[in-house]
Amino acid sequence: MAQYSAELDGVLVALADPTRRAVVRHLGRGPTTVGDLAREFPMTLPSFMKHVRTLESNGLIHTVKSGRVRTCVLNRERLALLDDWLAEQRRIWEERTDRLEQFVTDPKEQRP
Amino acid sequence: MAQYSAELDGVLVALADPTRRAVVRHLGRGPTTVGDLAREFPMTLPSFMKHVRTLESNGLIHTVKSGRVRTCVLNRERLALLDDWLAEQRRIWEERTDRLEQFVTDPKEQRP
Repeated sequence: MAQYSAELDGVLVALADPTRRAVVRHLGRGPTTVGDLAREFPMTLPSFMKHVRTLESNGLIHTVKSGRVRTCVLNRERLALLDDWLAEQRRIWEERTDRLEQFVTDPKEQRP
Repeated sequence: MAQYSAELDGVLVALADPTRRAVVRHLGRGPTTVGDLAREFPMTLPSFMKHVRTLESNGLIHTVKSGRVRTCVLNRERLALLDDWLAEQRRIWEERTDRLEQFVTDPKEQRP
């Protein structure tokens, strides 16, 4: 549970930046070399590499090196952590709505 | 678009903390006074209030004051920003899967 929470912290921090979200979106179309990716973003290569490392250290992407070319690959299953958390919130809201409905329709639950 | 992106940054930063996620989860069951909420978390009231303010300034909750009692209310629609972003990623992945399927099944698309 603590590990899940720490991993979710990392995913949220990694995604809380428009460049990193754009990299995730780009890699959703398929693996891309660091060079091709970097050309899409108006910043220096060292700045861009910082974003790549943040995404990698938080498990959202991994990179594969072949000769001198490094390719970035999206870890889609990592985004499932976020899906799961949002689904949990929706479950809680639905339970609340159910309780409110029961209160309104069950006369035993109603107070004068 | 820039505003949506900045708002999404704020939502992600606000949620990248286990205490703030626990507050969101708690408020999913219904509005709660700051005092009742604070008792659930093992920290000083000033530390807790910092988390409340981060959630409020990023639009995830709002607070209502009645006399000396301040009540926190969840802004569910704010989490929809995150739902929308995740849905966009899934659409991109599905388009990619469709393209790969087309490549495999359509002989015109295949190269020797």
